[in-house]
Amino acid sequence: MIQNDTIVALATPSGAGAIAIIRLSGNKAISMVSDCFQSVTSKKQLSQQKTHTIHLGHIVDRQKTIDEVLVSIFKNPHSYTGEDVVEISCHGSPYIQQEIIQLFLRKGCRMADAGEFTLRAFLNGKLDLSQAEAVADLIASDNEASHQIAMQQMRGGFSSEIAKLREELLNFASLIELELDFAEEDVEFADRTQFKVLIDRITFVLKRLIDSFAVGNVIKNGIPVAIVGEPNVGKSTLLNALLNEERAIVSEIAGTTRDTIEDEISIGGIGFRFIDTAGIRETQDVVESIGIKKTFEKIEQSQVTIYLFDSFKGISNLKAIKLEIEKIKNKYPQKPLLIIANKIDKLDDVQLAELQNQIDGVQLLSAKTGFGVEQLTNSLLNLINTGALRNNETIVTNTRHYDALLKAFEEIQKVKHGLESGLSGDLMAIDIRQALYHFGEITGEITNDDLLGNIFANFCIGK
Amino acid sequence: MIQNDTIVALATPSGAGAIAIIRLSGNKAISMVSDCFQSVTSKKQLSQQKTHTIHLGHIVDRQKTIDEVLVSIFKNPHSYTGEDVVEISCHGSPYIQQEIIQLFLRKGCRMADAGEFTLRAFLNGKLDLSQAEAVADLIASDNEASHQIAMQQMRGGFSSEIAKLREELLNFASLIELELDFAEEDVEFADRTQFKVLIDRITFVLKRLIDSFAVGNVIKNGIPVAIVGEPNVGKSTLLNALLNEERAIVSEIAGTTRDTIEDEISIGGIGFRFIDTAGIRETQDVVESIGIKKTFEKIEQSQVTIYLFDSFKGISNLKAIKLEIEKIKNKYPQKPLLIIANKIDKLDDVQLAELQNQIDGVQLLSAKTGFGVEQLTNSLLNLINTGALRNNETIVTNTRHYDALLKAFEEIQKVKHGLESGLSGDLMAIDIRQALYHFGEITGEITNDDLLGNIFANFCIGK
Repeated sequence: MIQNDTIVALATPSGAGAIAIIRLSGNKAISMVSDCFQSVTSKKQLSQQKTHTIHLGHIVDRQKTIDEVLVSIFKNPHSYTGEDVVEISCHGSPYIQQEIIQLFLRKGCRMADAGEFTLRAFLNGKLDLSQAEAVADLIASDNEASHQIAMQQMRGGFSSEIAKLREELLNFASLIELELDFAEEDVEFADRTQFKVLIDRITFVLKRLIDSFAVGNVIKNGIPVAIVGEPNVGKSTLLNALLNEERAIVSEIAGTTRDTIEDEISIGGIGFRFIDTAGIRETQDVVESIGIKKTFEKIEQSQVTIYLFDSFKGISNLKAIKLEIEKIKNKYPQKPLLIIANKIDKLDDVQLAELQNQIDGVQLLSAKTGFGVEQLTNSLLNLINTGALRNNETIVTNTRHYDALLKAFEEIQKVKHGLESGLSGDLMAIDIRQALYHFGEITGEITNDDLLGNIFANFCIGK
Repeated sequence: MIQNDTIVALATPSGAGAIAIIRLSGNKAISMVSDCFQSVTSKKQLSQQKTHTIHLGHIVDRQKTIDEVLVSIFKNPHSYTGEDVVEISCHGSPYIQQEIIQLFLRKGCRMADAGEFTLRAFLNGKLDLSQAEAVADLIASDNEASHQIAMQQMRGGFSSEIAKLREELLNFASLIELELDFAEEDVEFADRTQFKVLIDRITFVLKRLIDSFAVGNVIKNGIPVAIVGEPNVGKSTLLNALLNEERAIVSEIAGTTRDTIEDEISIGGIGFRFIDTAGIRETQDVVESIGIKKTFEKIEQSQVTIYLFDSFKGISNLKAIKLEIEKIKNKYPQKPLLIIANKIDKLDDVQLAELQNQIDGVQLLSAKTGFGVEQLTNSLLNLINTGALRNNETIVTNTRHYDALLKAFEEIQKVKHGLESGLSGDLMAIDIRQALYHFGEITGEITNDDLLGNIFANFCIGK
């Protein structure tokens, strides 16, 4: 990978806004901007300015003033990429953004590839690979839990743990390989008892990290919840009630649209994806029975099922409701099921008592008045094993890391068996090297261009 | 207007990007950010840092780290608003943006209104009103010409001219009003000959500015061009050819969509809005004759008409084409008309000669091969009076300024007549004061809350 050239990209979202940031990185970044910059106050040269300083002036293309800008200088190695970096804060007109970027392309800059700033940060040792990957996760995070995991990973929580184990393992590997050089003398530099303790510790950590992937995946992608209920039982009112409970404040912030949260709602910092279904009412109708089939498919794909019914309509025929609930329970005995009686504001006390008496574990709710909404959100949160999250434990969310951890675990098991069965050092060394290789894949000590290409292609341009 | 509080807003476009900027302004901006900021390298206090410096650290809400950020400090009065300003450059996740903004709302910040940063800049004397208005124009500018005008206005080109004339006029007004105090002594402090010279100069400048509005308006809003032509004469191929000629490079920049330029194309830095019409073929059909009526309406609304026809189909019936051209010419004798024969790549030399012989002023074109496209763009540019623009003259684009200039012009004419007819000083002083008032409206010396509210409501949030 060539990285001698200077790259440029828009770092802020495209479109019109108050301001936009154009970012350059590379050894010519400062001189290139300096050539096109006229300071407001003096004839100062950007190249003579200190790192981490800001300068007001104009970006000028020959005679034409493109914009009044603020230029921020970051000098190698004290920058995001570890190279000289310049950030130009210009007015947020797409026209101006284009003019400035094209000016620097003409000056010899190259348009940055997706993720290339972070790639350079990695190549220059500012971040390890899993930290770099966390940057993309951080930008994509849309709820507290996924944000927290990405933040922790970006700060090195996960990879520092791996790196430490890797170092200890590497140490033992060296000793064992040293023994091979003295094979005829039959010495043991590596204390087998200590080594076994280390292998057990690594096994334990790997197992915990591997197990955390299930939780991590759920947190990263949101928890699918199927809502089973016929039309008009109040599904959308319920979703709005959940939404209002949690998101009211968000809507005060400019630029926040509600378009995308119709189905995904953040509750207690965890994303829940609510999947609407048609219900499972018994019928002779062919079309409807296709609907029932689809409902079951959606329950299958979900982690939690909410059975929602209209208590006012249902009170006269609780038997049918009980039958439907039984059917779901029988089909999915392991899947958490919440039974919610909506519209209870329409019932009198006698009816409420009968409802609770007849239907086991029913939760009362009025999406209209908001009664029971909080209880429902608590139930949802209780169903999710977020213990690890609450305890600030490391959680793996990245499939690539998960694969590497699984492979490392496998190799470590081989090493363990080797130790127990008194395998010769030369054979054991091969397994240890394999385990080390997979550890290195996570942090980026072991890498190749294809892998890096894949990882950084998922970044946005400008990062 | 209260402006003691500290305001916060997202300054970059909403949505996910590499980075986002959150901006605070007000006397507590620095201390508020300082409270939530943990420097990476040391325990440094933001309030003790110099203006125009950048600091790497974390935004922390109690125990929770929200993001790793860069914080830029601008100290009163050396900032955009003239107050203490802090810009937080965070990762471009909407979730993080919201968390940071909400943190500062909890700390006592207020969400900024649209344009409030620029309003504060105006109230603190960093910009005059017409410069502040130019900021919004600059952000909205989408072609070279409108960008150039906004840039010029933002740098004070227009308002400094007005301010200078205002000052000179104010000077004379004071002298004339001074005479009133000595009315019984019949003195003349204000030299009437010099005053007449000034009034003539003001008249000249006002007239030029008022006349420039027609050009300015066209440049700001784009030049409407009606394309008259039946289906399949190649209208969309022509638009694409024009587009490719001018915009090829733009598509290389990430985030640039072509959605909005289907009809608006920037040629030579000027925006042209191409309006499709159904053509004007003679017919008995009621529906089609409604179409013809609409075509004429669209020609009416346009500044330029392009008559486009398929020369390969048309060569066998040039009479009909000539009739249609005549009809347009008769109906709109004043309106520029370009007659374009498309698909000339399908004609042989004899046919080409006949075409040029029969149809006066026809321009040959092949949208497919690109032949004649450049000639067409040149013709379009020649039709627009862009002399003023090319000569870097001041151009008025703002309706509010235009109105104030018209009113000032009217008052100046009264002053002129007063001078010529030997009107008494006290009456003339009233007219001068009125003219001064309208000058002041442009630059913002004369203003009121309603006016400011209207102007800044058109800004985006965060600017």
